[in-house]
Amino acid sequence: MIDICYDGSQFEGFAPQPHKRTVYDTLIAKLNQIYKCKMTAYGSSRTDSKVSAKTQLIVYDAPFEINTDNIVRAINSGLNEAIYCKSAVYVKEGYMPRHEVASKTYIYTISKHYDPFTRNFEHVVPHELNINAMEEAANYLIGKHDFSSFCSANTDVNSKVRTIHSININYEYGKTKIEVSGDGFLYNMVRIISGTLIVFGLEKYDPSLMEDILKSKDRSKAFATAPAKGLCLEKIVLKGNDEEK
Amino acid sequence: MIDICYDGSQFEGFAPQPHKRTVYDTLIAKLNQIYKCKMTAYGSSRTDSKVSAKTQLIVYDAPFEINTDNIVRAINSGLNEAIYCKSAVYVKEGYMPRHEVASKTYIYTISKHYDPFTRNFEHVVPHELNINAMEEAANYLIGKHDFSSFCSANTDVNSKVRTIHSININYEYGKTKIEVSGDGFLYNMVRIISGTLIVFGLEKYDPSLMEDILKSKDRSKAFATAPAKGLCLEKIVLKGNDEEK
Repeated sequence: MIDICYDGSQFEGFAPQPHKRTVYDTLIAKLNQIYKCKMTAYGSSRTDSKVSAKTQLIVYDAPFEINTDNIVRAINSGLNEAIYCKSAVYVKEGYMPRHEVASKTYIYTISKHYDPFTRNFEHVVPHELNINAMEEAANYLIGKHDFSSFCSANTDVNSKVRTIHSININYEYGKTKIEVSGDGFLYNMVRIISGTLIVFGLEKYDPSLMEDILKSKDRSKAFATAPAKGLCLEKIVLKGNDEEK
Repeated sequence: MIDICYDGSQFEGFAPQPHKRTVYDTLIAKLNQIYKCKMTAYGSSRTDSKVSAKTQLIVYDAPFEINTDNIVRAINSGLNEAIYCKSAVYVKEGYMPRHEVASKTYIYTISKHYDPFTRNFEHVVPHELNINAMEEAANYLIGKHDFSSFCSANTDVNSKVRTIHSININYEYGKTKIEVSGDGFLYNMVRIISGTLIVFGLEKYDPSLMEDILKSKDRSKAFATAPAKGLCLEKIVLKGNDEEK
């Protein structure tokens, strides 16, 4: 299992797609080259086009053993510069990181001013945001709920029940960071939550409206999905493992 | 006079060059469009290819008056996303920012690990650096000196005497920052100082060798020029103006 990070602005998402540059395809091309055969890999999380990741756990079946330090070195050598492999570890056969996630943390970053240095990692909202109002609205989402209101309407999953462990909102030097931790997330869930919290931050509605939005189980009641570039997968905690990845 | 910042990784330097994308040419194209005539501008500092700037003061003769808020808005509208105009102010005719600089501060950033998020703004040195040794060596450079040893050999200037006001070196979260302030800098001076300080940080020589390097007035005695991408023009203080730009 390898742990990678990537600047998502350079890719059309994690998952493989024909004729598009994705993180998976870029990494697989490298693995094919290292192991001299056609490789397949399994990631812990799909991230959308332009979404970045400080961590992403990926498992593949190696046809032969290589020392983990050398795996890291071989993967990083000549790899697309927007991806970096941080570490490698051997896991038992059939281990699927996707099934072993205890919690994930995403951070959504909003900047008050345009900044050419961080332009690919934040969404600009050129207004004062009321952090207290955002926190008050966010509190309605903590816990185990049906998050249908915060899921792209055309998502086909068995259950839209998920547990959000915490939402922390911090403001520093013109940047507002929404940190959401949970046991798993529906398609676009963090971006819809962030887009909705921005509307509360702009004081357009009373924060208590968030409860009605959640209870409605209707995507059209929540507000616009925040742009992908503000989102970053920050941390993954695996089951039976308090170690942060 | 406008104050701009830019991600230098997207440009082949500040100064105009035929058939190359430079900050000056990109900005002038925008000014030509706004003022509907062929414009000329004068900057406070030339920055090399791949060098970034948090500030760069630029003066131009405007053929007609526009409110400063509207100038900023017009310049940023549709401008290359790696440049941002922060402010505009009217100055007296003939004012040349280059002649009005009281001090400039550059920061050179060295990262211990490769980081895809900040890859365009730092130089990777995958070793422990001895910050105390770097500070000790840096101290020999403070004050008014002939900096011929820290200037590209083929530079043609009348005097290579400059004054360095301070060099501060900080280490935090795997990043070493060398902050150099002075009244002006020779071509490649901060990059040669940084490259030389890295060698002292690696404990290859005793820091006292820095004094010999300085006194030799011989470029070949200093060490390799550090790569451009680690350098950023951080701050400019104008004469008769303690306000930081």
